[in-house]
Amino acid sequence: MTAYPDLSAQERAEALATERAAYAAFQAQGLALNMARGKPAPAQLDLSLPLLTIVQAREDCFSEDGTDCRNYGVIDGIPEAKRLMALLLDDEPENVFVFGNASLTIMHDAIARCLDFGCLGSQPWSTLDEVRFLCPVPGYDRHFAILEQFGIKMIPVAMTDAGPDMDVVEELVAADPSIKGIWCVPKYSNPTGITYADETVRRLASMACAASDFRIFWDNAYAVHHLYGQDAPDELLDIGIACTESGNPDRYLKFASTSKVTFPGAGIAAMAASAANIAEAKRLCGAQMIGHDKLNQLRHARFLPNEQAVKAHMEKQADIIRPKFQLVENMLHEQLGSLGIASWTHPHGGYFVSFDGLPHTAKRTVALAKDAGVVLTGAGATWPYGKDPLDANIRIAPTMPTLEELASALDVFCCCVRIAALEALDAS
Amino acid sequence: MTAYPDLSAQERAEALATERAAYAAFQAQGLALNMARGKPAPAQLDLSLPLLTIVQAREDCFSEDGTDCRNYGVIDGIPEAKRLMALLLDDEPENVFVFGNASLTIMHDAIARCLDFGCLGSQPWSTLDEVRFLCPVPGYDRHFAILEQFGIKMIPVAMTDAGPDMDVVEELVAADPSIKGIWCVPKYSNPTGITYADETVRRLASMACAASDFRIFWDNAYAVHHLYGQDAPDELLDIGIACTESGNPDRYLKFASTSKVTFPGAGIAAMAASAANIAEAKRLCGAQMIGHDKLNQLRHARFLPNEQAVKAHMEKQADIIRPKFQLVENMLHEQLGSLGIASWTHPHGGYFVSFDGLPHTAKRTVALAKDAGVVLTGAGATWPYGKDPLDANIRIAPTMPTLEELASALDVFCCCVRIAALEALDAS
Repeated sequence: MTAYPDLSAQERAEALATERAAYAAFQAQGLALNMARGKPAPAQLDLSLPLLTIVQAREDCFSEDGTDCRNYGVIDGIPEAKRLMALLLDDEPENVFVFGNASLTIMHDAIARCLDFGCLGSQPWSTLDEVRFLCPVPGYDRHFAILEQFGIKMIPVAMTDAGPDMDVVEELVAADPSIKGIWCVPKYSNPTGITYADETVRRLASMACAASDFRIFWDNAYAVHHLYGQDAPDELLDIGIACTESGNPDRYLKFASTSKVTFPGAGIAAMAASAANIAEAKRLCGAQMIGHDKLNQLRHARFLPNEQAVKAHMEKQADIIRPKFQLVENMLHEQLGSLGIASWTHPHGGYFVSFDGLPHTAKRTVALAKDAGVVLTGAGATWPYGKDPLDANIRIAPTMPTLEELASALDVFCCCVRIAALEALDAS
Repeated sequence: MTAYPDLSAQERAEALATERAAYAAFQAQGLALNMARGKPAPAQLDLSLPLLTIVQAREDCFSEDGTDCRNYGVIDGIPEAKRLMALLLDDEPENVFVFGNASLTIMHDAIARCLDFGCLGSQPWSTLDEVRFLCPVPGYDRHFAILEQFGIKMIPVAMTDAGPDMDVVEELVAADPSIKGIWCVPKYSNPTGITYADETVRRLASMACAASDFRIFWDNAYAVHHLYGQDAPDELLDIGIACTESGNPDRYLKFASTSKVTFPGAGIAAMAASAANIAEAKRLCGAQMIGHDKLNQLRHARFLPNEQAVKAHMEKQADIIRPKFQLVENMLHEQLGSLGIASWTHPHGGYFVSFDGLPHTAKRTVALAKDAGVVLTGAGATWPYGKDPLDANIRIAPTMPTLEELASALDVFCCCVRIAALEALDAS
C-alpha cells in the first residue's frame, strides 16, 4: 500500500470512506474490550495459586529467625522476604526494606518524607519555593500523579533508545537546585519497553547535581519480566553500585514489587537504598507502621525461594504474554506498517508497547476506539499533567485480554489510527 | 499492713531493707519477662488459624460482586470486607474505606493529608504557623509519636472516668483556632480502660470549635474487646450519629482494625467517616494506592461473616485474657492495696491497666523492673513527648505473658513499686 502522506487528496478521501465503513461495522459488533491498564490476565494469576496454601497451619507461621509472623513487629520485613526482594531489586538483603502490597505506596510515601523531612538532614522540600522533577516521556501516569498532587513541578525529558536524553538531564540538574529528582523505569520502561544503557546509568549516578539531595526514583517494576527467555534478558547496570562508585551513594532509591510476578492485589513490595537512606526510612516510618503483613511475606518467600524459582515462574508468565506482544507487533506491522502514519516500540520485556501516531491524532484515536467499545489508556496519560504536546503517543497494554480479544481490539485500534491519520492529513 | 505514708522513718527503713532483699532474690532468678506492649498471646492467635485456609483455590478468590481479588483495583475495599469493618466501626458499609493491615498507618496518613491538603477545602495545616492537638492523658504513645514527628504541638487534657475532661476541652477548642484535633480511644481506652460516657461523646460532637476543620480522631481499637461477656459490654454512643445530629457531620474520623481480633501482623484495618470525608480520602489516596490486599479482606470477611461470628470469636479471646486481667487486679490488690502508694484502673475490656504510683516513682519502678528482667512500657510513654509531669503513670499490658509468667512479673513489679515508693517517701 502507498503511504498515506503520498496519496492524493482524492485517494485519501476514498480511503477515509472505506475506513469509516469498516469502523461502523466494528461499532455494530457491540465490543467491550480493554487495553488500558497493565493488568495480568487471569491465566497469569493462576500460576501463583500455590501461594494460597503455602502457609496453612500454626507451624507454617514462623520465619526462619523464629518470628511469629501472625503477631506485631519487624518493620522492615522478615529475612527470607528481604532475600526474595533483593533478587528483584538486584541488591543485598541488608539494604532492603519490605513494605506492603504496593510499590506505588512506597514511592508516594518516600516523596512525602522528602517533602516533610528532607533527606538525611537537608531542608524539607515542602519548605522550598519550588520543587521540580525530571520526567522522562513517555512515562508512567501514576508517577506523574504523585508529583502533581504534591505540587511538584514536572519537567518532561525525552526518552531515547538508551534511556532519558542524558545531555538534557545533565544540563538541567547541574543548573537548577530546585530539581530534586527524576523518575526512572530503567528496565523494559513503561511504556517504551527500552532498558537503560550502562552509560545512561553511569551518567545518572555521576552527574553533577545542583541539589545535593537529588534523588533518582528507580522504579524497577519489570526487573524479571523478560519476554524472550530468562537467560538472555536485557541487562541493566545496577544504579546502587554506579552511585556508590561515583561517590554519590545516597542518590538512589530502588523500588520493586511482586505485583506482576504473583498477585497484583496481594503481593509484597520493597525499597532498597544505601544504609543511610534505609536507616532514615525506618526511623521515619516508625511513626506510621509497626510492620507489614509478614504472613504474606512468608507466602512469597516460600513460593519463590531462590533465583531459579523466580526464573522458572517468570518463564511461565512470559509464555502466556509473549504471544500477545507478538500479535501486537504483527498486526501493527500488517495494518499500519506501510502507511507512514505510525511507529511503535518492540520491547523485550515489561507490560507495554509505546505507540506514536501522527501529531494531533492520539486523542482522536482513543475517542474513536472508545466509541467502538475498545478502551485504551487515555491519550496524554504518558505525559506530565496529561499533556502530550504532539498528541501522538498512546500506551498499548496487551496483557489482560485473551489473544482473541486482543486481535479484535487491535483491528479496531488500527482502523481508528487510520481514520485519525487521514483526518489529520486532510486538516493539515 | 500499715500504709507507707503512716510509717515512721525507722519503719520505712526496715521495710525498704526487706524489699531490697526480696528484689535481690528476684534479680538472682534471671527472669526475662515482658509486660510492655499490647500484643496478643500465641493462644489468642491460634483462634484465627482458620483464616489461613479459608481462601485456598481459584474459585475462592472472587468477592461477592465478582471481583477477582488477586488482581489490581477496588481502592476502598470489597463489599463483604466493608460490612465486617462496619461492624467494628459501628457504622454503615457505605461509609467504610478498607485499607491494609494497620489502623496506625491509616491514622498517620489521615493526619498527613490534613497537613498537605487541608480538610474539605480548608487551608492545609502545614501552611499554618502552628497546629495543636488535644491529647487525653494518659494516652497511647503511638498517637503521640505521629504528632511529634509532624511537629504538631500536643496539649495534654486529663482523662476522667467519663472520658477527657470536657470542661477543659470545650474551653480550649472554643478559644484557639490552632487546635485542630483530638485523639480519642473511646472504648476501653488505652491505657485507662474506661469507656466515654454518652454525655462526653455528645459534648465532643456539639462543642463550638474555633477551627472549622477540627477533627476528632476516633480510634475505636477495642470496639468488641469485652472482658466480661459479649452481651453486657460497655456501651459507646456513636460519634458519627452524635456529630451528624449536632450539625457537624464531617468532624469525626473513625478507625478500627482486626489487629487484636485476628492476627496483629496480618489483619485488615478501616476508616469510617462522612460521605464527604470518605470521598476526599478516596480522591487523595488515589495517588498513593491502587487497592489494598483484597485476598486478606476476603479471608477476614469469610472467617467473621456476621455479628454472631464476631461475638463468638471475641468471647474466646476474652476467655484467654480475662484471667490475666483478674490476676493483675488480685495481685495489685494483695500486694499494694493497703499501702497507700498506688491506684490502678479496673477495665471491662481492652488491653491495658493504667497504674499510678506515688509522684516521682514511675521511672524508678520501670528501671528497677528492667534490672530484674521485667520489661514494662517506658515510664512517661503515656504522655505527650514522653513527659509525665508527675512521673507516676505506668501502663500494664498483661496479655502477652502466660499466667505463670504474668504472676512472676507482677511479683517483681509490686516489689519495685514498693521500693520506689519507700525511696520517694524518704526523699520527700
